[in-house]
Amino acid sequence: MAERNATLETTIETLITQKKYPTLRDILVTMNPADIAAMFSDLEERTLPLLFRLLPKDIAAETFAELEPDLQELLIRGFSDSELKEVVDELYLDDAVDLVEEMPANVVKRILRQADAETRKLINDILKYPEDSAGSIMTTEFIDLRPTMTVQDALKNIRRNGSDSETINTCYVTDEGKHLLGIVSIRAILLSEEDAVLMDIMEDNVISVSTLTDQEEATAMISRYNFTVMPVVDGENRLVGIITVDDAMDVMEDEATEDIEIMGGVTPVDTPYLRTSVFQFWRARIPWLMLLMIGATFTGMILDHFENALVRFTVLTMFIPMLMDTGGNSGSQCSVTVIRALSLGDIEFSDLLAVIWKEIRVAVLCGLSLAAVSFAKILLVDRLLLGNNDITILVALTVCVTMAVVVLAAKLIGCTLPMLADKLGLDPAVMSSPFITTIVDALSLLVYFAIASALLGT
Amino acid sequence: MAERNATLETTIETLITQKKYPTLRDILVTMNPADIAAMFSDLEERTLPLLFRLLPKDIAAETFAELEPDLQELLIRGFSDSELKEVVDELYLDDAVDLVEEMPANVVKRILRQADAETRKLINDILKYPEDSAGSIMTTEFIDLRPTMTVQDALKNIRRNGSDSETINTCYVTDEGKHLLGIVSIRAILLSEEDAVLMDIMEDNVISVSTLTDQEEATAMISRYNFTVMPVVDGENRLVGIITVDDAMDVMEDEATEDIEIMGGVTPVDTPYLRTSVFQFWRARIPWLMLLMIGATFTGMILDHFENALVRFTVLTMFIPMLMDTGGNSGSQCSVTVIRALSLGDIEFSDLLAVIWKEIRVAVLCGLSLAAVSFAKILLVDRLLLGNNDITILVALTVCVTMAVVVLAAKLIGCTLPMLADKLGLDPAVMSSPFITTIVDALSLLVYFAIASALLGT
Repeated sequence: MAERNATLETTIETLITQKKYPTLRDILVTMNPADIAAMFSDLEERTLPLLFRLLPKDIAAETFAELEPDLQELLIRGFSDSELKEVVDELYLDDAVDLVEEMPANVVKRILRQADAETRKLINDILKYPEDSAGSIMTTEFIDLRPTMTVQDALKNIRRNGSDSETINTCYVTDEGKHLLGIVSIRAILLSEEDAVLMDIMEDNVISVSTLTDQEEATAMISRYNFTVMPVVDGENRLVGIITVDDAMDVMEDEATEDIEIMGGVTPVDTPYLRTSVFQFWRARIPWLMLLMIGATFTGMILDHFENALVRFTVLTMFIPMLMDTGGNSGSQCSVTVIRALSLGDIEFSDLLAVIWKEIRVAVLCGLSLAAVSFAKILLVDRLLLGNNDITILVALTVCVTMAVVVLAAKLIGCTLPMLADKLGLDPAVMSSPFITTIVDALSLLVYFAIASALLGT
Repeated sequence: MAERNATLETTIETLITQKKYPTLRDILVTMNPADIAAMFSDLEERTLPLLFRLLPKDIAAETFAELEPDLQELLIRGFSDSELKEVVDELYLDDAVDLVEEMPANVVKRILRQADAETRKLINDILKYPEDSAGSIMTTEFIDLRPTMTVQDALKNIRRNGSDSETINTCYVTDEGKHLLGIVSIRAILLSEEDAVLMDIMEDNVISVSTLTDQEEATAMISRYNFTVMPVVDGENRLVGIITVDDAMDVMEDEATEDIEIMGGVTPVDTPYLRTSVFQFWRARIPWLMLLMIGATFTGMILDHFENALVRFTVLTMFIPMLMDTGGNSGSQCSVTVIRALSLGDIEFSDLLAVIWKEIRVAVLCGLSLAAVSFAKILLVDRLLLGNNDITILVALTVCVTMAVVVLAAKLIGCTLPMLADKLGLDPAVMSSPFITTIVDALSLLVYFAIASALLGT
């Protein structure tokens, strides 16, 4: 929640003009790095380098990792080489990798020049993993123990290496070849006798992901197994990194945002709303609008084709929006439910028949309810109350039968298309409201005119 | 990911018929509780009590906590009192509370009768917090230390109480009155000298939530601050519980699902797709369909009202779907983006003017692009290629001006309504595609006929 405290910002800006640096520093050190970063994005950009230099080294690095890429770049451009080295040295490896991925080439060169040889090698290794893979979001800073160590040895090792590791809550037991043998929590270590051997207290049914596992799947597994950290192994089961739960939460949030945006017919934009430019929004939205606009012209052509029927039975026109919208909404409801169930892993392609069978029954219930209500409404309100005498029982029947058929067709399309997309390796979210609506619109009209022709002889 | 291994299930069912219980037990203990629970929901229900009894006590409780409520109830109904007591004693308090919340009254009575007096009191205390509050999802099992303790004292305390606490990774420092003074990570404890005093090594800028904080906000804070656990305090800053990150991830996932479902015009259903009944789906979908259907009849009435214009200029009819759909899609895009930004805390009501100003500019860009493309398309394809001579330059102009105006109006409605809903304390997700589309549809027609009347004199 980006609750922004306007008073605090004003205070800070006043203190900057008054050059009260010790006071500013005192204020900043009471704050959490995430809050400092949120405040930085609301302050005037020219004040940031000054404020950033006031931060103690460790808070500075954490704040830096939380900043938006454009502010990171701004700061880096103002850093001397030694300032840059200080920040890069303090960053956790996964944050350093994120930074290198976001910055333009010339800034990346400067960053890598300041990193020590070991870090540079590690960053380059992680950069080699495909985007959105577990390898690309892992960190290589973890506690690595041997199976023959006693609890006392393990504690010594943790005390020696713990400050460089991203977490000590879960430690890993590996052999000399780095093969992952087991995991042991800090709790198990602390609650065991000092001379117990790790081999005996470790959990040896280890759940791990591969460097090439999709980050979304790795994240879902962390959530499913209630882990706070997930080991990442290479093709030979050698432990190469860990994914921590805080990064998993970020991935989960980003993936949900991406799904929601795609379902709303928008190409995902990964900057916060207020920092996204008008042009970026235009680029994210216009291809979909164009595509769907062209799709809708087919609906228009169908409408045009049945013009004669409409001229003879103009009363049919007034029910077109209701039929098209209800069809579109029925299809959207179904596609949204199915897309989410697919992304949570509740269903998969092999469940297609079960899903279709369920949706058919839901569609029959919904279609009958809607048809009954609209039949009554058309005769009571439109005919009797509003006195539209063009509305006959047959017209009402045409509308209601169409309604039931359209709802059924819409639900079938709405559940089938996302599952087919998933099976074909496409993002099922693409098959949501906007597309389903466009398809169902055209279909609704075809059904409407076919039924009208059968019942009314148009 | 509910990857279900059909072979494993078949093996297990075969072993059950062959009564090979030791083999079954050997298989089950190699599995993670989350996987056992996923498998249970795919097995025949009558085999579950038998399999469950084969599980060792601790795995049994964890598996039980992971099961869907209907299977939990099934198992409980088969339990003897002493079996029930064993499971309830092993459950973490937050899981016990979840259980009590989900079960029917007669089962709850049995559960509470088996719980010891202390647990019963704690469960009842947590049940008093409002649904969806931080208090309702917290657990009261944490490590609680005094500021004057040395590191050595703290480690002794942790070794004594660690097995009952949900996590030892973060410990809390409180005074005698239970007021929260600071937090100290197990890492800080292990990396400090044995005679260091907690007061000196604890972090005393503690971020906490209140028992009444909304669970969604508490979860967002855990994600924002990269916590693995968040302290929950009462009105007097007394520490009463903690929320662990695994529960926060579940809340995050549920809230995203809820948002997505509401945005798709479905009342959220909290059971997995395949376990949700046809009737539940009907109940979740029909009210929205009815409401939106009635909304769409107004669009129909507008269409009806302009029937005369349509009879004289039938060519106008064919562009109605394109205009309505493009308007609806433009509005949806904008509402989806704004709703997600609100729920991530990227924007709030005070940003309304900034949002409107940004959307106006995006709308002008989108509107002009779409108008230009459709102007060219109407004249080149519809008139020249398809030879529709009813299409004059003025008709094309009418459609394109309408397009630009409708896109602008749709974007304004799409960004304003969710923000207003949020300000009024409603869920902004309600103001998404289905509602926006219904409103924009009616508006599109009004604009279309007004512009047609001005340009064509219909």
